[in-house]
Amino acid sequence: MSTVEKELRIGMIGYAFMGAAHSQAWRTVNRVFDLPVRARMAAICGRDESKVAEAADRLGWESHTTDWRALVARDDIDVIDICTPGDSHAEIAQAALAAGKHVLCEKPLANTAEEAREMTAAAEAARAAGVLAMCGFNYRRVPAIALMRQLVQAGRLGVIRHVRASYLQDWIVDPQFPLVWRLQKDKAGSGALGDIGAHIIDTTQYITGQRITAVSGLTETFVPERPLPVQASGLAASAGGGPDGAAPATGPVTVDDAALFLARLDGGAIGTYEATRFATGRKNGIRIEINGSLGTVAFDFERMNELEFYDATLPSQEQGFSRILVTEPDHPYLSAWWPAGHLIGYEHSFTHQARDFLEALATGVDPSPSFADALQVQLVLDAVERSAEQQAWIAVESALTAANA
Amino acid sequence: MSTVEKELRIGMIGYAFMGAAHSQAWRTVNRVFDLPVRARMAAICGRDESKVAEAADRLGWESHTTDWRALVARDDIDVIDICTPGDSHAEIAQAALAAGKHVLCEKPLANTAEEAREMTAAAEAARAAGVLAMCGFNYRRVPAIALMRQLVQAGRLGVIRHVRASYLQDWIVDPQFPLVWRLQKDKAGSGALGDIGAHIIDTTQYITGQRITAVSGLTETFVPERPLPVQASGLAASAGGGPDGAAPATGPVTVDDAALFLARLDGGAIGTYEATRFATGRKNGIRIEINGSLGTVAFDFERMNELEFYDATLPSQEQGFSRILVTEPDHPYLSAWWPAGHLIGYEHSFTHQARDFLEALATGVDPSPSFADALQVQLVLDAVERSAEQQAWIAVESALTAANA
Amino acid sequence: MSTVEKELRIGMIGYAFMGAAHSQAWRTVNRVFDLPVRARMAAICGRDESKVAEAADRLGWESHTTDWRALVARDDIDVIDICTPGDSHAEIAQAALAAGKHVLCEKPLANTAEEAREMTAAAEAARAAGVLAMCGFNYRRVPAIALMRQLVQAGRLGVIRHVRASYLQDWIVDPQFPLVWRLQKDKAGSGALGDIGAHIIDTTQYITGQRITAVSGLTETFVPERPLPVQASGLAASAGGGPDGAAPATGPVTVDDAALFLARLDGGAIGTYEATRFATGRKNGIRIEINGSLGTVAFDFERMNELEFYDATLPSQEQGFSRILVTEPDHPYLSAWWPAGHLIGYEHSFTHQARDFLEALATGVDPSPSFADALQVQLVLDAVERSAEQQAWIAVESALTAANA
Amino acid sequence: MSTVEKELRIGMIGYAFMGAAHSQAWRTVNRVFDLPVRARMAAICGRDESKVAEAADRLGWESHTTDWRALVARDDIDVIDICTPGDSHAEIAQAALAAGKHVLCEKPLANTAEEAREMTAAAEAARAAGVLAMCGFNYRRVPAIALMRQLVQAGRLGVIRHVRASYLQDWIVDPQFPLVWRLQKDKAGSGALGDIGAHIIDTTQYITGQRITAVSGLTETFVPERPLPVQASGLAASAGGGPDGAAPATGPVTVDDAALFLARLDGGAIGTYEATRFATGRKNGIRIEINGSLGTVAFDFERMNELEFYDATLPSQEQGFSRILVTEPDHPYLSAWWPAGHLIGYEHSFTHQARDFLEALATGVDPSPSFADALQVQLVLDAVERSAEQQAWIAVESALTAANA
Repeated sequence: MSTVEKELRIGMIGYAFMGAAHSQAWRTVNRVFDLPVRARMAAICGRDESKVAEAADRLGWESHTTDWRALVARDDIDVIDICTPGDSHAEIAQAALAAGKHVLCEKPLANTAEEAREMTAAAEAARAAGVLAMCGFNYRRVPAIALMRQLVQAGRLGVIRHVRASYLQDWIVDPQFPLVWRLQKDKAGSGALGDIGAHIIDTTQYITGQRITAVSGLTETFVPERPLPVQASGLAASAGGGPDGAAPATGPVTVDDAALFLARLDGGAIGTYEATRFATGRKNGIRIEINGSLGTVAFDFERMNELEFYDATLPSQEQGFSRILVTEPDHPYLSAWWPAGHLIGYEHSFTHQARDFLEALATGVDPSPSFADALQVQLVLDAVERSAEQQAWIAVESALTAANA
Repeated sequence: MSTVEKELRIGMIGYAFMGAAHSQAWRTVNRVFDLPVRARMAAICGRDESKVAEAADRLGWESHTTDWRALVARDDIDVIDICTPGDSHAEIAQAALAAGKHVLCEKPLANTAEEAREMTAAAEAARAAGVLAMCGFNYRRVPAIALMRQLVQAGRLGVIRHVRASYLQDWIVDPQFPLVWRLQKDKAGSGALGDIGAHIIDTTQYITGQRITAVSGLTETFVPERPLPVQASGLAASAGGGPDGAAPATGPVTVDDAALFLARLDGGAIGTYEATRFATGRKNGIRIEINGSLGTVAFDFERMNELEFYDATLPSQEQGFSRILVTEPDHPYLSAWWPAGHLIGYEHSFTHQARDFLEALATGVDPSPSFADALQVQLVLDAVERSAEQQAWIAVESALTAANA
Repeated sequence: MSTVEKELRIGMIGYAFMGAAHSQAWRTVNRVFDLPVRARMAAICGRDESKVAEAADRLGWESHTTDWRALVARDDIDVIDICTPGDSHAEIAQAALAAGKHVLCEKPLANTAEEAREMTAAAEAARAAGVLAMCGFNYRRVPAIALMRQLVQAGRLGVIRHVRASYLQDWIVDPQFPLVWRLQKDKAGSGALGDIGAHIIDTTQYITGQRITAVSGLTETFVPERPLPVQASGLAASAGGGPDGAAPATGPVTVDDAALFLARLDGGAIGTYEATRFATGRKNGIRIEINGSLGTVAFDFERMNELEFYDATLPSQEQGFSRILVTEPDHPYLSAWWPAGHLIGYEHSFTHQARDFLEALATGVDPSPSFADALQVQLVLDAVERSAEQQAWIAVESALTAANA
Repeated sequence: MSTVEKELRIGMIGYAFMGAAHSQAWRTVNRVFDLPVRARMAAICGRDESKVAEAADRLGWESHTTDWRALVARDDIDVIDICTPGDSHAEIAQAALAAGKHVLCEKPLANTAEEAREMTAAAEAARAAGVLAMCGFNYRRVPAIALMRQLVQAGRLGVIRHVRASYLQDWIVDPQFPLVWRLQKDKAGSGALGDIGAHIIDTTQYITGQRITAVSGLTETFVPERPLPVQASGLAASAGGGPDGAAPATGPVTVDDAALFLARLDGGAIGTYEATRFATGRKNGIRIEINGSLGTVAFDFERMNELEFYDATLPSQEQGFSRILVTEPDHPYLSAWWPAGHLIGYEHSFTHQARDFLEALATGVDPSPSFADALQVQLVLDAVERSAEQQAWIAVESALTAANA
């Protein structure tokens, strides 16, 4: 690349699990993809001075700061990448947009539908000034999931009848697993529902092109009280004990451990959704199956390089679930990577997200999913929570209406 | 076997799909299992004289008749095996019990909860006279499913958290598939719900030892009008056309194509259930996953000789879903069959059912599932239908209460 | 069926594992398939009077005898079915053919190529008198394997390049497993090679239509000495101990535990073959993969109802290994059984074999595999043994030449 | 990290497929792993000035050159990383070692055993001066493969009986695929044998701790003549046509398309090996199964995050192939990456290789696999080729002897 190529200077806020994943993406994206702009890892921001300094050094950021407001105000920053817990998304995103920075915000967009509405309005206002915003639903960028969407759009599934989606984890099955921030409503907004349920809502709407219009939900907190944490990293953490071997102090779990819901979609499909952190043995089991009148696609993130496709238009003797190894050059994103059969991993979804975002910024095309798309997911989450409380079917408010309300 | 061994003379009513499966079972059971009684295929009954005669000859029954009432009255019949559609179960079963015949009745027990209640009361009355009744939920007799129950009962799964059950078929995906009896409410009672949903309700209650106490359901009929049938066999059928190539006459589908529900169980577990005939590519996909605090079991009938078991008490480095090939001599029912690794098939579940029923009759122990157990399933079906109509959570009536009402 | 239909009276010799499997087939075949002849289970023969009497009663044979020569001579027997160990095949088969009985002989055809040659000559002589003979390679009758052949014959695989076949068992991994007849050269001829290697030789030649022309083999006996057996059933057995807790008497294993060979086939394909009883965890793992220029088929008997088919002529984005559930009505043998998705088991291969044999006898068409086909397998086995001894490539003699030698 | 930490300046030669993979590794290794040294991507070298300049920019190297001799001589280079085709390995590696540079050399070590012997002698001489050398068998660094070795070393498999290894690709199935350098003996040394067969030889010897002592091989070139290439990248390439639509010029394929061999190992195990580029549908199918007296491990690179483990010491009812998702923190290399269930990909094996190499350089411990280890693989390759030519079993020369010869 020439030295005069366009450069976008990234300021990232947050340096934990998501911060590491996004750093890997920014570091890699221009090494793999041909893009009209180059990402520069300009600054990383976090609350703890020594930890953020260590993160900057390890992850390869040019500078670091503990003051996100200062970061947002810097002239030499073009993009703000928000990797913090959900309780700070709204404030940071709105400040960044107001300062004319493009924004990439991790999902869920916010902890409440109200905040998500405000953020969406802010994004739409900024749009007029050429400032763009995207929400980070990284799983859309898994090649097999993008391929599912392509197959649906090409009509290979016919009329969609069923959506069957679950996101199964097991990292808090042990009642002694401590009360980390993801189990606290004020930080995380909700539990399995917003953390992982949001992904399968977004992904299935993305694949089918249909929106969830009504839900009947059930949420459950199997372990209502947990020890307070002393250390946490990624999804791992350890609980402390009191002095002299006393039992550790505990606190209440204020979010759901599991959330289940039935859904109707606006194209006539019906769906079952399940998000749980209590599915022993399932580590990151995102399972999506879509049945249509002409075919079926089925996916499991624990085999993320594979897509199962049943083509009911083949000769009946030869019909079967075809295990497509989604590593061919003509599969989404793959021509930039390794030869067929050489797998990619979880982190690649973030590199693909960075690629798509950079390309949108370079071309001025609206990136997707927009904040409005993310608001729509938020409204489904909100409807599920209300449905579970009221033990009734709840209609999902339209994001279009909601954003303009 | 000696010539003085006890013999039970079977009279079977119905000779279609279930009739063929039961015949295979009666013919085989004493050839494989050591039992204190021997089944004798005494008589088969059906409405069409020539067809039932042909069935008697082909399937190996000693005699045939078109009059089920006469059959029930015969002195030389010990057991009535009911393989007809659900609309005739109640009348036949009650008559047979009244005549002092043991009864094996195919599921679902009846087409309505009301009928099921009466049948259960009749069975309990007959019980006093030593006459026994069982409902034919054959999938309980799949060795892998019986093994799931054993593992739960042995505490290997710990506290059960999640039940995830679906029964997926696709035989009516084509809108031109004709309007067979299974799609008519007066014959079949309900559609996917009662036909296949009943199986996963029974099976999961059997495995977990927990009962479903409340449901939120959704039912859907994707194709409301279908051509009238001209020929049917098993689950296959063909539609006719009118004279001179006219479009065939059609009729309304009066049952559900798909039924979904969320459930709470009395042991604290929560569940998702789905029964559908519109899951393209899934032929007989009974999928059951049970997550407990110590482990998980997962099953798919399309790989019926396998059980996946995750044991969370193993060293963490070695934990994984173990694909148990359920063909070992110490697995349920298997010591009577072939060496390990030599698979069994669908029909074997009926042979195992015959074995268990004959053993119960010989020993006088109540066979299981009883009519009361089957009534409990009927009450869940009933609650799902009402929930779908009312769009509300519905509590499942207790079978105990119901039977005594 | 009418009472005047043709009946073939079967006399079966042997009542152990294979005897039970064949009995199940004879008992079932006319109950499931429409055939112009009906098999009658006339007589069973074994050396031990009380055991064969018990077997006759249990398995459903009309009479029993301990004298195979008398059985062969009976006027009221049409077919001799040989289920004994390999050391008696030649004598019985030749006597039966000489007596004008049709013969079904379990594989391997004989314990030596010499015997197999004589049997083949006898079969060809009998052929002139309308007496037919077939060798019992039951795995050809697994629907998925028959489907593999159909796909090859239809050209769907293009030019065959690779054959990859293994038959993996583990029933003698334990050095204390006793010295059953299958481990003794005088009874069994060879070990894994003839017992299970014969199956993958026959099956791959059947599927590809190519014959093995040269081999380089290796055989190994990992455990050369084993305790003498006290009890055996199927592939299970137990070893005895000496009096007063003394170690059990032992004897030498005189056959191979495992046999491996490379092969060239007459159509240009190359192959790897492996037969072993020491593949821990593999119970009856017959794995066959055939790679052609246009596609690949892959099969594992432990999932015998499935066939994997890779069609390299599909659009590249959609190519994948399709898991065909071989239970559709248009799959080989399946229209007679259950609806799609309702699996069949090991024993069904014998029922299909009985069907094909009966049909051949009824129509006078030569049944397949003929004794000459089985001789060809024997010649490959023989070449492998000599190759292993001589540590050299050995050309496989042509069966055509051999039979006429 | 502090600014005074030790830095190792890497000079890499080659910028194609392996060059890209190694670059990704050098760029990432210190961002993920805590190491006492930091890799600096100092210089990249290639023959084509403009292409290597482009590669330097894209892949992130500080400088570039077209003169590998000059690179090897530079004072500011500590490590030479050889990613060229095999015909230049010997010359470059020996020059680099002589210049006191540590060397990482891609596999196969050389194109002939003779060259490999010289390189090994050079490495052993350099060793005295503290200069270290390693061969790049990256698949050893796949966590599941490292775990297989750990299980064997911990005795979990007992006595190893069988090794079953195949490396299946299909990228040259089409006879019109052009004659790229990998199909030319002078560049590549051999075909599938050295390119991919080398990997399964190294990997299985690594896992089992046993060495191959004798082989019987077969090699085949199915398509002996191919069009000359006009463009190539990774494993993809296109053939040109002559002027005016004439058929493209062709040339002879001088290497094997497929290589098969049987093997004996020094610990008593026996093995089958297969390397082919004609296994339609298999993209990068490295399949390894090891059967021991107490258990089995099975691996397929197309599901590289999984390991199947059969533990024959578990209760028999619960034995099965456990699908271990090798993404737990206590699995090899994984604690540095993402939470459990978040997969890694092909490129990670190179990052792990870089980690292990850097750690060895930092600590002065001999890195593994050494050039002597790689020579041992070369001697097996050599024996297979001679065995195929001579159609005889060939003993594998000991690398120890060979290196000192």
